[in-house]
Amino acid sequence: MKIKHIVESQQFTVPLILELFERTDLMKKVVARGGTKDYEKKVMASLFYKPSTRTRFSFESAMYRLGGRILSTEQAKEFSSEVKGELLEDTIQIVANYCDAIVLRHHEEGGAQRAAAISPVPIINAGDGSGGQHPTQGLLDLYTIYNECHALDGLSVAIIGALDQGRTARSLAYLLSKFERIKLYFIAPDELQIKPDILEHLDEKGVSYQLSSNTDDIISKVDVVYQTRIDKERLKHKEIDLTKYNIDTNVLKKMKYNSIIMHPLPRSVEINPAVDGDPRAAYFRQARNGLYVRMALLTMLFDKE
Amino acid sequence: MKIKHIVESQQFTVPLILELFERTDLMKKVVARGGTKDYEKKVMASLFYKPSTRTRFSFESAMYRLGGRILSTEQAKEFSSEVKGELLEDTIQIVANYCDAIVLRHHEEGGAQRAAAISPVPIINAGDGSGGQHPTQGLLDLYTIYNECHALDGLSVAIIGALDQGRTARSLAYLLSKFERIKLYFIAPDELQIKPDILEHLDEKGVSYQLSSNTDDIISKVDVVYQTRIDKERLKHKEIDLTKYNIDTNVLKKMKYNSIIMHPLPRSVEINPAVDGDPRAAYFRQARNGLYVRMALLTMLFDKE
Amino acid sequence: MKIKHIVESQQFTVPLILELFERTDLMKKVVARGGTKDYEKKVMASLFYKPSTRTRFSFESAMYRLGGRILSTEQAKEFSSEVKGELLEDTIQIVANYCDAIVLRHHEEGGAQRAAAISPVPIINAGDGSGGQHPTQGLLDLYTIYNECHALDGLSVAIIGALDQGRTARSLAYLLSKFERIKLYFIAPDELQIKPDILEHLDEKGVSYQLSSNTDDIISKVDVVYQTRIDKERLKHKEIDLTKYNIDTNVLKKMKYNSIIMHPLPRSVEINPAVDGDPRAAYFRQARNGLYVRMALLTMLFDKE
Repeated sequence: MKIKHIVESQQFTVPLILELFERTDLMKKVVARGGTKDYEKKVMASLFYKPSTRTRFSFESAMYRLGGRILSTEQAKEFSSEVKGELLEDTIQIVANYCDAIVLRHHEEGGAQRAAAISPVPIINAGDGSGGQHPTQGLLDLYTIYNECHALDGLSVAIIGALDQGRTARSLAYLLSKFERIKLYFIAPDELQIKPDILEHLDEKGVSYQLSSNTDDIISKVDVVYQTRIDKERLKHKEIDLTKYNIDTNVLKKMKYNSIIMHPLPRSVEINPAVDGDPRAAYFRQARNGLYVRMALLTMLFDKE
Repeated sequence: MKIKHIVESQQFTVPLILELFERTDLMKKVVARGGTKDYEKKVMASLFYKPSTRTRFSFESAMYRLGGRILSTEQAKEFSSEVKGELLEDTIQIVANYCDAIVLRHHEEGGAQRAAAISPVPIINAGDGSGGQHPTQGLLDLYTIYNECHALDGLSVAIIGALDQGRTARSLAYLLSKFERIKLYFIAPDELQIKPDILEHLDEKGVSYQLSSNTDDIISKVDVVYQTRIDKERLKHKEIDLTKYNIDTNVLKKMKYNSIIMHPLPRSVEINPAVDGDPRAAYFRQARNGLYVRMALLTMLFDKE
Repeated sequence: MKIKHIVESQQFTVPLILELFERTDLMKKVVARGGTKDYEKKVMASLFYKPSTRTRFSFESAMYRLGGRILSTEQAKEFSSEVKGELLEDTIQIVANYCDAIVLRHHEEGGAQRAAAISPVPIINAGDGSGGQHPTQGLLDLYTIYNECHALDGLSVAIIGALDQGRTARSLAYLLSKFERIKLYFIAPDELQIKPDILEHLDEKGVSYQLSSNTDDIISKVDVVYQTRIDKERLKHKEIDLTKYNIDTNVLKKMKYNSIIMHPLPRSVEINPAVDGDPRAAYFRQARNGLYVRMALLTMLFDKE
């Protein structure tokens, strides 16, 4: 299937997702044998308007394992010392001359869409604005569930954190809604619960869900716990004890033996490092899947010709 | 022909320019077939004392398309946290151990010359000081005219902007003076007109030129409009309406059908984006030529052995 | 011999040092013929929590000459804009997914040890904290002496500077103590002399040494002068004339004809540039040896499998 740009998770249909996962499985084998040279003529530009070394390294490593090369900046705001506020469109048209794909992290919501509208080379959205999209994170999350649970249909997934602004939580809920017999649990302090637009979408798709302000009854039932962070500063009702959302070895004991714990990382206190050694702690494997999924996405863009 | 360093546009004789253009034409073909591996053992260091991502990407992409590798810094001022104000000469001698060519952007005029004086590997001046040289920009401008107009002799060229400090404008005037039957129009507010040293040089070379404070009579006559920016802050006579120097679709209507509009980019308001779609808008092709010209220059340096 | 990480100079036994030097000699030949592709599938990550372009370039060039690839950041503190103070351990576990070795410069003493304790890929300590280790510098210093003097046993070495905090001076003293009939001279203002822990170590190993506050009687006797910097600000007794520790052409006249002058660079006033042309000025050759030694170290890590 052909895709030109990767701008938002909505563009990924189930067949496209399944092709992506097939390619991702293949990329694991490619990496295991030391990478490929198939894309050695390709140059990828990392055009980051604010630093995100983790995401950048993940993409750049993906490109290297495919044999390609990297142009890289984490200070694209200082792209030119002469004209402040140069049009993103101009920048993209210039950088497109120097590479075969642009991984863009832009500070404004909609930046990736604007870039894709005029770019002659593929744009990959690596996050635009705080309320914007970060589709490759959503896809690697989905792949991790698929890979760890050997299925997507029929899963029950608890998503914990400040869900109202949780870009990754929202993306994951959206992507999971494409599959059958999914049961979602949104666990957050009431004032930070997931927004109605997602719930309306789930209603439309006939996805079963439940909202809760604590993990107690839920944690023992689910196949996947998707943990994210809650910043204390965001809470008006400061008396709320956030530790009840944390995962430690006690919580672990209540979880199903074949469930998994995920986290988009970086973590703060919400997962105790004592949990890391448990086989259900999937978050570092999840980070590694970022490499494979991004390799697969790059091949989908490059193979389109 | 052999060159050791690229420090200033003055070092380029007509035969050297013609060799460069021949190599540049060849590089277009090399890129079209996905690059070469001929220089895969070469390492180029981008040693930028202030960020200029556009110029850096252009050079680094050129190196990649030649098969080579990149060491890169945009914060060479923090080259060492220990000794502030380390001698540029020491830095060059150390970095030269780690690469086969150094692309240097230095904050002091004459920095590239000082580096070239002691460097065992080729130095390429990517801009030194605000009043200094940026020879590869001048050469790619000249190549663009040659490539778009299929000639250099006999052309009439309007250069617009704050020409007194316009590094690119000055370089281009200098380089064009090497060719036959050139007619130059310098268009600028009186107080920002091109400096006498350039005019004296043109007189010596017998090049015809005209100064003007507006584009009216000229824009319809020229083969090339080389547009640059005028910063309002530089004008003492603030009442001057700078919009009369801008290019929009109205100005476009007055221009010859086979003329071209150039701009070193980034642009601000001086070219309206509505102009971009016109085939005479050559500035993005000009940016792309930066890739080919820099590839050609690198081969001239590497092939010298 | 197998090594997993390079954390501190203490881990290098004499047989390991000799293997390193053999490999280093080989690397000189490899570079002379333009590098190798033997490690072309390897990716090295430069994870610098504070900039040190010199050290970074040295490692990255080493990796390129081995055929490998580079992920690079000099602002790892901004690794994530979301969680400040992310655990180094988490960062390492994530980055390890994207590369085959991590060159780490961390701002905290012991950072490299912590990283090595959990990293699935080799960690190379490129400096941790101001009082910490920088083992590859010590090893390249030792190699330079071996290479220039064709021996290590039986040498007399003067080490000059603010030795109490001199990381390189301390490392070198430590490494030299492993060899036979070494005579060390520590030359520093009294209040900045080498600390007792090093002297105790030398006593244990039976190494002969002498402390002095001036170079006068010593400079003509030694095979190696290892010069470092003294920051005026560190002296309480401001009346001390630091110029007496500097090396200029007058000092050069007193030195043995076959001695050498070393410096970890960057230098300030402590070596006059007029000395650079003398064949005994070995500091730029020393910087170049950094390339070969780091190549050799990388091969020792990569070949371990």
